[in-house]
Amino acid sequence: MLIQDMTRQESIGLLTRRSFGHLGCSQNGQPYVTPIHFAYDQECLYSFSTVGQKIAWMRANPLVCLEAEEIESSQKWTTVIVLGRYEELPGTLEFEDRRKFAYSLLQQRRQWWEPGYAKTILHGTERQLELVYFCIHVVELSGHRAMP
Amino acid sequence: MLIQDMTRQESIGLLTRRSFGHLGCSQNGQPYVTPIHFAYDQECLYSFSTVGQKIAWMRANPLVCLEAEEIESSQKWTTVIVLGRYEELPGTLEFEDRRKFAYSLLQQRRQWWEPGYAKTILHGTERQLELVYFCIHVVELSGHRAMP
Repeated sequence: MLIQDMTRQESIGLLTRRSFGHLGCSQNGQPYVTPIHFAYDQECLYSFSTVGQKIAWMRANPLVCLEAEEIESSQKWTTVIVLGRYEELPGTLEFEDRRKFAYSLLQQRRQWWEPGYAKTILHGTERQLELVYFCIHVVELSGHRAMP
Repeated sequence: MLIQDMTRQESIGLLTRRSFGHLGCSQNGQPYVTPIHFAYDQECLYSFSTVGQKIAWMRANPLVCLEAEEIESSQKWTTVIVLGRYEELPGTLEFEDRRKFAYSLLQQRRQWWEPGYAKTILHGTERQLELVYFCIHVVELSGHRAMP
């Protein structure tokens, strides 16, 4: 197996095709990784979530990482890693257009993984369904391809 | 879709069945997420890697996170998140038994994703094939299950 760099364009191609990845945020040096549903457009990864640990941590520290991959076999795969900056799209008039845009973009994607829409019962308590829309600005982008 | 907590035993069950997940580490508040091949045994997740950014960051800050999942459908999935502590298993006599144990454990698993063994050419330069074995001690464990 040989692993090589992908071009920026190839990496963006993967982010455009995929809508499922893994998001990392951190607080006081402790990283936290969760699956995420996203939509890429113009150097931004749009997504949404209910208010929880992930949102609280990203509000406190906007430095995040998103990884997405395409696996054909154990010997043939690609992975893209984005170092990015979290920006919330609050429910105010100022952000209305961007929220609508994010919503329409996410609606076009396959709704594969959507805890944001789900009824969540954790520790015996139902969690409030407050949706937070956000975008992750791409700061650094790298992609690797493995071939047999 | 309903999302609920999993018991500790159910979460450990998933880690025992799975050998592929996503590892998060961080440096100066910047998280970094990569796919990882692992083997769980007795509160430890064993793995290996070539020396690179991930290893450098975990040596500097041993606080890490590993996420693994099982997806049956968009409505039926489980995900387990481990907050853990990185410990390297260096190639010294003191660690020989634990390295051998890690090696044998990883050999039993399906060799799905093994950049550690691959010839890596990044930025036009072939990377040295220095393998680092390590274990991630489970500090906190949580699991969620989604059902239709």
